[in-house]
Amino acid sequence: MSGNTFGTLFTVTTFGESHGPAIGCVVDGCPPGIDLSVADIQLELDRRKPGTSRHVTQRQEPDTVEILSGIYEGKTTGTPIALLIRNEDQRSGDYSNIADRFRPGHADYTYWHKYGIRDPRGGGRSSARLTAPVVGAGAIAKKWLQEQFGTVFKGCMSQLGEIEIPFESWDHVGNNPFFAANAAIIPELEAYMDGLRKAGDSCGARIDVVAENVPVGLGEPIYDKLDAEIAYAMMGINAVKGVEIGAGFKSIAQKGTEHGDELTPEGFLTNNAGGVLGGISTGQDITVSIAIKPTSSIRTARRSIDKQGNPIMVETLGRHDPCVGIRATPIAEAMLALVLMDHALRHRAQCSDVSVNTPRIGKDK
Amino acid sequence: MSGNTFGTLFTVTTFGESHGPAIGCVVDGCPPGIDLSVADIQLELDRRKPGTSRHVTQRQEPDTVEILSGIYEGKTTGTPIALLIRNEDQRSGDYSNIADRFRPGHADYTYWHKYGIRDPRGGGRSSARLTAPVVGAGAIAKKWLQEQFGTVFKGCMSQLGEIEIPFESWDHVGNNPFFAANAAIIPELEAYMDGLRKAGDSCGARIDVVAENVPVGLGEPIYDKLDAEIAYAMMGINAVKGVEIGAGFKSIAQKGTEHGDELTPEGFLTNNAGGVLGGISTGQDITVSIAIKPTSSIRTARRSIDKQGNPIMVETLGRHDPCVGIRATPIAEAMLALVLMDHALRHRAQCSDVSVNTPRIGKDK
Amino acid sequence: MSGNTFGTLFTVTTFGESHGPAIGCVVDGCPPGIDLSVADIQLELDRRKPGTSRHVTQRQEPDTVEILSGIYEGKTTGTPIALLIRNEDQRSGDYSNIADRFRPGHADYTYWHKYGIRDPRGGGRSSARLTAPVVGAGAIAKKWLQEQFGTVFKGCMSQLGEIEIPFESWDHVGNNPFFAANAAIIPELEAYMDGLRKAGDSCGARIDVVAENVPVGLGEPIYDKLDAEIAYAMMGINAVKGVEIGAGFKSIAQKGTEHGDELTPEGFLTNNAGGVLGGISTGQDITVSIAIKPTSSIRTARRSIDKQGNPIMVETLGRHDPCVGIRATPIAEAMLALVLMDHALRHRAQCSDVSVNTPRIGKDK
Amino acid sequence: MSGNTFGTLFTVTTFGESHGPAIGCVVDGCPPGIDLSVADIQLELDRRKPGTSRHVTQRQEPDTVEILSGIYEGKTTGTPIALLIRNEDQRSGDYSNIADRFRPGHADYTYWHKYGIRDPRGGGRSSARLTAPVVGAGAIAKKWLQEQFGTVFKGCMSQLGEIEIPFESWDHVGNNPFFAANAAIIPELEAYMDGLRKAGDSCGARIDVVAENVPVGLGEPIYDKLDAEIAYAMMGINAVKGVEIGAGFKSIAQKGTEHGDELTPEGFLTNNAGGVLGGISTGQDITVSIAIKPTSSIRTARRSIDKQGNPIMVETLGRHDPCVGIRATPIAEAMLALVLMDHALRHRAQCSDVSVNTPRIGKDK
Repeated sequence: MSGNTFGTLFTVTTFGESHGPAIGCVVDGCPPGIDLSVADIQLELDRRKPGTSRHVTQRQEPDTVEILSGIYEGKTTGTPIALLIRNEDQRSGDYSNIADRFRPGHADYTYWHKYGIRDPRGGGRSSARLTAPVVGAGAIAKKWLQEQFGTVFKGCMSQLGEIEIPFESWDHVGNNPFFAANAAIIPELEAYMDGLRKAGDSCGARIDVVAENVPVGLGEPIYDKLDAEIAYAMMGINAVKGVEIGAGFKSIAQKGTEHGDELTPEGFLTNNAGGVLGGISTGQDITVSIAIKPTSSIRTARRSIDKQGNPIMVETLGRHDPCVGIRATPIAEAMLALVLMDHALRHRAQCSDVSVNTPRIGKDK
Repeated sequence: MSGNTFGTLFTVTTFGESHGPAIGCVVDGCPPGIDLSVADIQLELDRRKPGTSRHVTQRQEPDTVEILSGIYEGKTTGTPIALLIRNEDQRSGDYSNIADRFRPGHADYTYWHKYGIRDPRGGGRSSARLTAPVVGAGAIAKKWLQEQFGTVFKGCMSQLGEIEIPFESWDHVGNNPFFAANAAIIPELEAYMDGLRKAGDSCGARIDVVAENVPVGLGEPIYDKLDAEIAYAMMGINAVKGVEIGAGFKSIAQKGTEHGDELTPEGFLTNNAGGVLGGISTGQDITVSIAIKPTSSIRTARRSIDKQGNPIMVETLGRHDPCVGIRATPIAEAMLALVLMDHALRHRAQCSDVSVNTPRIGKDK
Repeated sequence: MSGNTFGTLFTVTTFGESHGPAIGCVVDGCPPGIDLSVADIQLELDRRKPGTSRHVTQRQEPDTVEILSGIYEGKTTGTPIALLIRNEDQRSGDYSNIADRFRPGHADYTYWHKYGIRDPRGGGRSSARLTAPVVGAGAIAKKWLQEQFGTVFKGCMSQLGEIEIPFESWDHVGNNPFFAANAAIIPELEAYMDGLRKAGDSCGARIDVVAENVPVGLGEPIYDKLDAEIAYAMMGINAVKGVEIGAGFKSIAQKGTEHGDELTPEGFLTNNAGGVLGGISTGQDITVSIAIKPTSSIRTARRSIDKQGNPIMVETLGRHDPCVGIRATPIAEAMLALVLMDHALRHRAQCSDVSVNTPRIGKDK
Repeated sequence: MSGNTFGTLFTVTTFGESHGPAIGCVVDGCPPGIDLSVADIQLELDRRKPGTSRHVTQRQEPDTVEILSGIYEGKTTGTPIALLIRNEDQRSGDYSNIADRFRPGHADYTYWHKYGIRDPRGGGRSSARLTAPVVGAGAIAKKWLQEQFGTVFKGCMSQLGEIEIPFESWDHVGNNPFFAANAAIIPELEAYMDGLRKAGDSCGARIDVVAENVPVGLGEPIYDKLDAEIAYAMMGINAVKGVEIGAGFKSIAQKGTEHGDELTPEGFLTNNAGGVLGGISTGQDITVSIAIKPTSSIRTARRSIDKQGNPIMVETLGRHDPCVGIRATPIAEAMLALVLMDHALRHRAQCSDVSVNTPRIGKDK
């Protein structure tokens, strides 16, 4: 209830602060008998880890994961899987200058007022570093969904600051530090980021994620709708300010004759729904788009107040991502995977006896 | 866990179908000792009820609420408050033509595949009629928040189909059937809706809601962030496809020097955050904007399949809102109120001992 | 979280007070496609209802149930099933004499101090009348478990006050107002109760319940153990002060060589475990025994205080059960059924892929 | 939902297996600003740890705890507190002989059938070793309750196998390995245990725990009653088969005129209720008694089956507690503390505005 557990049947409880001894999570509700190794998890963590290009924070964290429980002879046992990642490159001194002042646009102010105390080292618990355990947990969900349904997750950056990134091919995504699905635009993105860094400024981004081969029937109306839970998951990622499913905000100006996806015996003809109708998956691709705000920790001095309420100027030294969106793609994929796995388990709890003779035109098996 | 309960400490469990005997909800966790009457709740239900203009469904439902429990001598007792609304204008026959076919863009298809059975009368459980109990519960939350913190909720339609509705004044909202904050544009909106009705088509809408006088400190990082829960609540409303907090999707193209709201001893200078930083309320206005898709039940014939998988054409007769966004404003306000009340209770569970000597520049008392 | 919802996947949210307009519940998470009628539920309610012998309260309540939702053409749809029971024989005046004083052994004192307000009419929410909706919900669970696994529930009174009731046959249980599994002892029980009534006193009881044909594997270690949830369910019934599973308190003086139930290829040789090992069902009968305290509302004057803290004498007029244990058997059965159904759904969420080739020596199918 | 999280607002999520790399837990919902050190937690862990007398398992585990998160400059921050205890004295080989056979009275059989896989090393997740993290978490609850209300916890063994242990004084409890509140009886208990060890047998025990200075008003009717949650907590401890509150099973034969605790302006005259009425604390001492069954892992050969269903004889080598009740006192205290802290937070969520002018005759401050 204090917001550190994600999910209802497949749950992830995270712990840790940016500059504490360790971060990690307890994954509960995983079905037994699944092959699971450290390598399965490390693979995803490596996609998110810092220090891999000049466009992200230079903090050196290998994000090496240790599995503490829940595995026996290479298989899950149905008991909690605890993941531990030691913090190795803390520099608490970097944050002494902001310990008693509030950065504009940062959680500093609200944590202080909520709790009456805050760990200022690297943002403490509010740091985007805490997305690492989630990515680890997401790796488990991805593996299970792949094995059960053939579900695969894809994501890319579709806008960086003012630059829209036209989609060319998923093949490009792994070949550039931006997760862009476009090869030609990379030099422009790099120049843009270099300019921002020199200016001591930051920018936002848009990330698109897709789940393919999703079974029909996931999602619990009328509040835990699949899209409602996706919105919750995505808006819970640091710096996210907007979420769209399918046609999203474009739906406003659409007519009913345009928006509603027609069906034929061969399948849906369009996907304005983004794979969800009435809060339940249709079997089509689930398509999500999120807006990420610019990083609040920047080297440009800005007006603020200190703990005593005095006016001050604050600029943030230390190591920061000038665009947190750059590393957000694997995080958004992980969150989507966690939502789908949770709902797959919820669905079979209530509906595993259901047999429907109608041909399902989605791709579930 | 089956998605019919909203909230964690202040919970609303709804029941009912569009054409069943009754709809209603059980509100649990309400603090004791609050003055509460039927009139408090009926007031909000009347804002949402159908049949009040030619632009909404002509189903005649007075939505008269009965309080079954939880009140003694005009005050809440801390026990569950059950609200009951009898359905009075059912016409089950209207739906016989769609009982074994799937409307494009409608929950028909997904309910059928999830449950193997569905109540086709008026969409059954998937009907927007099920927002009535939520509006009733929201009335309780609004009252409590007003008394505790002076919090007030405002909402308006800011776009109808292709027509953007410039904000003029909250004073206009109650004087037109669209909840538009603009008087001059009403004839244009009416003509637009009349045209849609004649064409047998429907359209989407954008709704903006604001909560003023919100206390600092509400929201549970790192998953039950206040904005994550708002996104969940809003995306859970029928037909919503997108949610923004504060600057929303505009954040993408903003620089950090523009987006981060500066603070002075007198308060924040801007509100790009929409009243939430790090998932916790700042004390500023909470601003939310949602995208509502066009109604899927339209009189224009469209391609689909029936339960046997045969290709068919489907058009929807019966009574339907040609734009479900028209009645969505009080619903969105209610959802926002439920989220805030829930988080106010959660906050005082964990943090009621907290004292912070810093001046809070938000408006909480 | 306010304690009015029972269960996690198969949930029962109750509402109502003893002398309010109605009592009822919302049952959520029920699998779709199950045949369910009012008669299925009324049958169990009739076993519990008051006024059926001179040994229980003379309040005349038919406890007629109305199903408000969740059923379509005689089958469950997977949506919430709301049950409504109108209160018909309220006599609020009966309770005016206790509105500002606290009965020894009654919830009067604690409700007042917890909530600062209480509904004194018939004990308000604390009345055992609120077990009626639970019995209704339990009827649904019993039906599903019977159909899925052949599970059947049996219960009887095994002690009334000082009188132990030797078990003879389940056949007797339905033929006497005490739910005693013994025909010969009924006159003695009746005389005992008549004596108590004349003396203006009350007594306790022991109730035993058994579930037969329970599948192996239900229960979630390490906190939501099946026996832990049974203990929670039973201790939650009004007036219960003790719970035993299997050998219960006799286990203390047993040796390991006596207590541990040996296994052979034909099955377990004994059942000291009461059908639960390590918090998980073994497939044997689940056996539970509960202690019910004597009714606190008695006609004998006793020392107490009033709301101002003044010493007073209090005696309770009105209509009361002189032994709440007499009607407790169907309630305990219902609670046990609710726990088992909830855990059956939880089990298939996590473990429905599990195949174990070992012969299961319990009775699940 | 998979049973590894205890509590609702103050939650403990544990992980680990008896012979895995580590055990531990994540404590969430702790109020911020509380002084908390490793020493606070280690103190309680040392009371429970193995190897401290010849009457318990000889496994050498220092149970040294590391705090991984949630503390800043010696104070809780309101974020999750992760506790880590490395396993240091694993001897997996000890368990090879039982990997494919089921010990009578042990979770072997049920884990295998539930999950289709089990970690046989030391009982894996079903080991009583997993109570260590709970004791650690309980230390935090004890500290907070002490500071808030002056609540203190006491516990003792009141029966060992067939030997009842008369209560003399709490002062004795810390001076003997049995947690007996009686000095003279220790030689008899030691001889009894020595005899059992020689015989390769085990025995049960009764443990009594008391919480003093409990505030009035804790507990959520009507399902999360304080006593229901205590029963759940206690029955969730390994090997517990029965739970009593207050007069417990003695209530059955009591009359209402005897059981109901009379009140005077100076307080309650008796405590048959065990400090709970209507599921809510009265302010009196909360008194609980539990029955612990004899250890199932014994050196005496007994009949069982193996995974193929063949009849076999099984005896358990390795290191085991011949009476798990001996170390159960600090565990039961911890569970009671966790329940009370959780309910204290729940109470202030809903009822923190409540003011009752009546003198509270309990001991809360």
